[in-house]
Amino acid sequence: MGKAHSNALSKVGMFFENSANIGMKAICGRDEVWVKEAASKFGWEGYETSWQKLVQRDDIDVIDITAPSNYHKEIAIAAAENKKHIFCEKPLALNLKDAREMLAAAEKNGVKHQVGFNYRFVPAIQLAKKLIDEGKIGKIFHFRALYLQDWIIDPDFPLVWRLDKNVAGSGSHGDLGAHLIDAARYLVGDFEKVIGMSKTFIKERPIVEKMIGLSAKANADAPMGQVTVDDATIFMTEFKNGALGSFEATRFSAGHKNAMMFEINGSKGSIKFEFERMNELQYFSREDETGYQGFRVIQVTEDIHPYMKAWWPAGHVIGYEHTFVHEFHEFVEAIANDTKIAPDFNDGVKCSQVLEAVDKSIEERQWINVDSL
Amino acid sequence: MGKAHSNALSKVGMFFENSANIGMKAICGRDEVWVKEAASKFGWEGYETSWQKLVQRDDIDVIDITAPSNYHKEIAIAAAENKKHIFCEKPLALNLKDAREMLAAAEKNGVKHQVGFNYRFVPAIQLAKKLIDEGKIGKIFHFRALYLQDWIIDPDFPLVWRLDKNVAGSGSHGDLGAHLIDAARYLVGDFEKVIGMSKTFIKERPIVEKMIGLSAKANADAPMGQVTVDDATIFMTEFKNGALGSFEATRFSAGHKNAMMFEINGSKGSIKFEFERMNELQYFSREDETGYQGFRVIQVTEDIHPYMKAWWPAGHVIGYEHTFVHEFHEFVEAIANDTKIAPDFNDGVKCSQVLEAVDKSIEERQWINVDSL
Amino acid sequence: MGKAHSNALSKVGMFFENSANIGMKAICGRDEVWVKEAASKFGWEGYETSWQKLVQRDDIDVIDITAPSNYHKEIAIAAAENKKHIFCEKPLALNLKDAREMLAAAEKNGVKHQVGFNYRFVPAIQLAKKLIDEGKIGKIFHFRALYLQDWIIDPDFPLVWRLDKNVAGSGSHGDLGAHLIDAARYLVGDFEKVIGMSKTFIKERPIVEKMIGLSAKANADAPMGQVTVDDATIFMTEFKNGALGSFEATRFSAGHKNAMMFEINGSKGSIKFEFERMNELQYFSREDETGYQGFRVIQVTEDIHPYMKAWWPAGHVIGYEHTFVHEFHEFVEAIANDTKIAPDFNDGVKCSQVLEAVDKSIEERQWINVDSL
Amino acid sequence: MGKAHSNALSKVGMFFENSANIGMKAICGRDEVWVKEAASKFGWEGYETSWQKLVQRDDIDVIDITAPSNYHKEIAIAAAENKKHIFCEKPLALNLKDAREMLAAAEKNGVKHQVGFNYRFVPAIQLAKKLIDEGKIGKIFHFRALYLQDWIIDPDFPLVWRLDKNVAGSGSHGDLGAHLIDAARYLVGDFEKVIGMSKTFIKERPIVEKMIGLSAKANADAPMGQVTVDDATIFMTEFKNGALGSFEATRFSAGHKNAMMFEINGSKGSIKFEFERMNELQYFSREDETGYQGFRVIQVTEDIHPYMKAWWPAGHVIGYEHTFVHEFHEFVEAIANDTKIAPDFNDGVKCSQVLEAVDKSIEERQWINVDSL
Repeated sequence: MGKAHSNALSKVGMFFENSANIGMKAICGRDEVWVKEAASKFGWEGYETSWQKLVQRDDIDVIDITAPSNYHKEIAIAAAENKKHIFCEKPLALNLKDAREMLAAAEKNGVKHQVGFNYRFVPAIQLAKKLIDEGKIGKIFHFRALYLQDWIIDPDFPLVWRLDKNVAGSGSHGDLGAHLIDAARYLVGDFEKVIGMSKTFIKERPIVEKMIGLSAKANADAPMGQVTVDDATIFMTEFKNGALGSFEATRFSAGHKNAMMFEINGSKGSIKFEFERMNELQYFSREDETGYQGFRVIQVTEDIHPYMKAWWPAGHVIGYEHTFVHEFHEFVEAIANDTKIAPDFNDGVKCSQVLEAVDKSIEERQWINVDSL
Repeated sequence: MGKAHSNALSKVGMFFENSANIGMKAICGRDEVWVKEAASKFGWEGYETSWQKLVQRDDIDVIDITAPSNYHKEIAIAAAENKKHIFCEKPLALNLKDAREMLAAAEKNGVKHQVGFNYRFVPAIQLAKKLIDEGKIGKIFHFRALYLQDWIIDPDFPLVWRLDKNVAGSGSHGDLGAHLIDAARYLVGDFEKVIGMSKTFIKERPIVEKMIGLSAKANADAPMGQVTVDDATIFMTEFKNGALGSFEATRFSAGHKNAMMFEINGSKGSIKFEFERMNELQYFSREDETGYQGFRVIQVTEDIHPYMKAWWPAGHVIGYEHTFVHEFHEFVEAIANDTKIAPDFNDGVKCSQVLEAVDKSIEERQWINVDSL
Repeated sequence: MGKAHSNALSKVGMFFENSANIGMKAICGRDEVWVKEAASKFGWEGYETSWQKLVQRDDIDVIDITAPSNYHKEIAIAAAENKKHIFCEKPLALNLKDAREMLAAAEKNGVKHQVGFNYRFVPAIQLAKKLIDEGKIGKIFHFRALYLQDWIIDPDFPLVWRLDKNVAGSGSHGDLGAHLIDAARYLVGDFEKVIGMSKTFIKERPIVEKMIGLSAKANADAPMGQVTVDDATIFMTEFKNGALGSFEATRFSAGHKNAMMFEINGSKGSIKFEFERMNELQYFSREDETGYQGFRVIQVTEDIHPYMKAWWPAGHVIGYEHTFVHEFHEFVEAIANDTKIAPDFNDGVKCSQVLEAVDKSIEERQWINVDSL
Repeated sequence: MGKAHSNALSKVGMFFENSANIGMKAICGRDEVWVKEAASKFGWEGYETSWQKLVQRDDIDVIDITAPSNYHKEIAIAAAENKKHIFCEKPLALNLKDAREMLAAAEKNGVKHQVGFNYRFVPAIQLAKKLIDEGKIGKIFHFRALYLQDWIIDPDFPLVWRLDKNVAGSGSHGDLGAHLIDAARYLVGDFEKVIGMSKTFIKERPIVEKMIGLSAKANADAPMGQVTVDDATIFMTEFKNGALGSFEATRFSAGHKNAMMFEINGSKGSIKFEFERMNELQYFSREDETGYQGFRVIQVTEDIHPYMKAWWPAGHVIGYEHTFVHEFHEFVEAIANDTKIAPDFNDGVKCSQVLEAVDKSIEERQWINVDSL
């Protein structure tokens, strides 16, 4: 994430005419050797080894939090109190209560706050939003969403931090499901009630001493530890506007690497999206001429498409990292012009509320009204 | 359905070497003018206007029931008592109790019984079964299935019999969901518990006096009547083998005409199928060489594929109606050789049990254990 | 082919309201045992072992020629002289000269004549024609077509009759390319000039004594014989209307079983088709709203689509054999109503003309004007 | 192109561990206001307004040429004479003769030289090369390639420099076809003989005074000027290894924005690629288990895939611009380690040779042996 953010920050100014230039002042990490090298490699002017010190620096306006989830709250509140604008990676916090405290701190201190639901900044998803806002989909009946990965199917895959509830907060639900929930809120609206189920297919895994990225390997004789998060979570919902929703997040779906996808059906048309073909949006219109109706595969790479004027000629596709450039572009614009940002910490809170409502529905084996939390 | 069955029956002998020849003795319908013409057009030797009379004819060995669901039970029991083998369209009955009575009657009278879950006879679905049986998918983690149609989105679409609970028994759930449930049982196994939700998006529709097929049109000033079935039903399940399942059946999914589709994820691989491309099966193997893994689009049209030797050269696709030829081929074989049939009335009962468990879970707003019914 | 035709003839009356009923009088074959059995199995009233006798029978109005290409001419001329309407499989004849003689005989005797370019009767291809005729594609710039198969890649595959020029007339060019040429003429128009290249990748193959279908196997010690037809033929063209065309027919394209496909680009839009997904047509319109343009995947299975009213509800796909039902339906209609047929022997002649012009261009290594032949 | 190169140069060091660091010394342009701003925006230390001066600077080791094609030769030769390593965008030169002079200059001066066929650096295309080199495709029978765009279909689109032969050298053939030719040489091998055809569908277009990018608009009363390049060029080839090839490059293919695509068929398998889904490679293996063969859609986004370790987790796709990062990475490595580069000016010359052979075949209306040029 540090690399993704650094790369994106360095590109905003090159591709977008921003009201404000971004100066990359300092990167922060506990290991001085590592952070020094990272600063040089990723283009930062300097570095810090203490985030407490960083948030107090006078020459810094913005704090960008990419630390593990269990640090988000503390850093964000300190940043807010130091009047820094805050960009925070998702999930906003380990739980709803913490998320609400972070929001309160940001609001109280009058700083801008954004949460890193970067999928909102896929041009195809913004085009989907545009179709909906223009009424081209009509009244929405269905939203169904999947986020499928397959990196932990192998029982020998070790017990990395993402499988530890204390650090990660949640498993597939909080990591992947959170993106689906935010997309649903962005495109369809708020959730009324939910009921879910979840499963940890492999309950013990070898403990690994040190890991690099996701590709850690444990020794053959490594002791076993408990997996404390969900491998897969499925839930159903009714939205406040009456639409039905179904959601599934899993890390046990062989063949899918990062298949974040959804479909929306409305009274006038439908929309389909899958991240692995992120430059495409499928759109069906019931208002097309009878006999010639069909799902259109829109290549969302033309000048007229969201953000694409900044990039390459039509058909010259962009990738995952561009979503970060887009979100930072919006963040900088909002700070410079003092305008509203979305998704902000409110959206982070709302997402956490749904995540927790689902958790509660699983524990209590019953439907939970989201607003009851 | 009468046309689909007649066509299929007339083709079995032409394309399959059966132990027994099929003689198409008589078609039955209440309207003599219509049934006489149908007999001639569809290749039947004769006709009857009373099913009571038909089931008693000595020259007939098999009764094929394609009447509306509310007639299934009565006809099937009478047929059984007359020692006729029975083929019955799905859903087997209006409810679980009736289905069980039909099964009991068939078993007591020692007749062969088959239920028309024709999707089992799509070559690609049989190939999926083969992959699973050979262990190529491994332990199954996920089954997710959709059956999407869009023919009643328009509020002006009239109140046809399929929207009347008394005749149809159920809406999308019983009509479409039943196929998904049977496919799940065929490929994954039995259901442990379920919870569902359903919705009737359009609650009143114009009453139409007479309809032809699905394309009925009501007058502009037609009175309105109540839709008494579900437009969409979603449910989640845990299978007895521990796999998680999600199901959705809807008639409100713009752009999808008959999109019966599912995906299975296991420890060794995955399978994807969608009926609108029924000659294809997608298969991902985790055992393919690293770096070259990917979903294979198998064209299930080669001689070595289930049933395909009977048809055309490779790549010369077949269609919906062929599933009927295949199921009748199996039925005739089973009668001729006195072997076991699947899916039989037991499968019809099991499917009804899941359907009703879902209905109950919706009513009671809680998880229902399928075996409790 | 005999099976495909028999099946189709028996279905025309069941699915289409024809002006004339089809009586399946007699099937003809040299081997009495085989033909007798075929007559019974395929639903023919009787059989003949001499085509000379068959064409003279008074109770027969139509001769349907599915014999190997080297018999077409003789049978067709005899049929015409006996005032029988003629349906002849493609290629019409072994060469252009023969094709012209057949056309002359048919015209002189005033009989109806149709040639079996069955792909014209794929509903999606007829929909493509409709789009073009309605001006939705505009002025055509490009036609590119492929017909890819892979059944003779294995060098052990034996020397079947389709690889013998004396019987088959031609290899991939006449067998597969002929369908592409007819589709091009149907959709784009006549050819101005052509230049091609061809290749026989495997020049010798084991001789097999007897073959069944395409799946013949030669003995390990079988003697080798010469392959006398092309394995692959590619050619370019300029159409009379100025469009550019490229064509490729091959039996050496691993993974493609029967991939007859083409794309058309015009000033207003584009069309894509591939036979292995024959129920779909892709259509791009430059007149769709800017920003929402994309290739539409039209499911050509609705009542309003060509021929589909006769079959199943929307989304219930049809297959290869249905193209034969459609072409016989048209043939019968044309005879009953004395209307014009397409494609007729003229189309067969025009196709042969292009085939031969390509052959000549390969031999002479230069562009050939099609009308010069 | 300046932006694409600047962006890529700034990223090489961030994502690849290079033997040498890249210092972005100076960007060059005639308009000082523009070039000064570009230097600041794109991250260059300084700028020059004279390329003659630039190539003589002592603090510079490498010259990267992105000027219009008509400047390539002069700059490259001067750079070589000043002992600068040279990266030159494609096409290498306006014609074969110039390309050869550039190659000679580079070789004589012992500098490294690379030509910007960036598609070679798409991970999926490198994976295709790996499959071929490992023998998984076997003997190659067919290569067919298309490069389809649609940006000049509108007759009102003005006479931009790319439509002027004096500046651009060629139209679709040199611009798009060149990429296909290089891909063919990379994957299949050298060309034996060619024959082509080309067309300028719209021969006159409005003259525009000034253009920005490709989106120039001419005034309604703008005078008309002659289009002097081809709108579309098609050609056939036989490769030296006996494979057959077909090529098509066009800017008149409605719906295709940047559809560079190809398919390769061999004795053991096939490969398909299309740039608009550049993170995917399709691969069919005849050695997969019978009955389960099919084109695999490989998501080329895993650590083990070419270059992908440098980027994001599996399934997090990359885009067009990454091909430039990859090519500069290789260029820098080759300079630092004094190793061989591909594609170098030799490849540029070979590509020009094929381009000109095709042009000659069009002019002379006959097959041209490529080595005769």
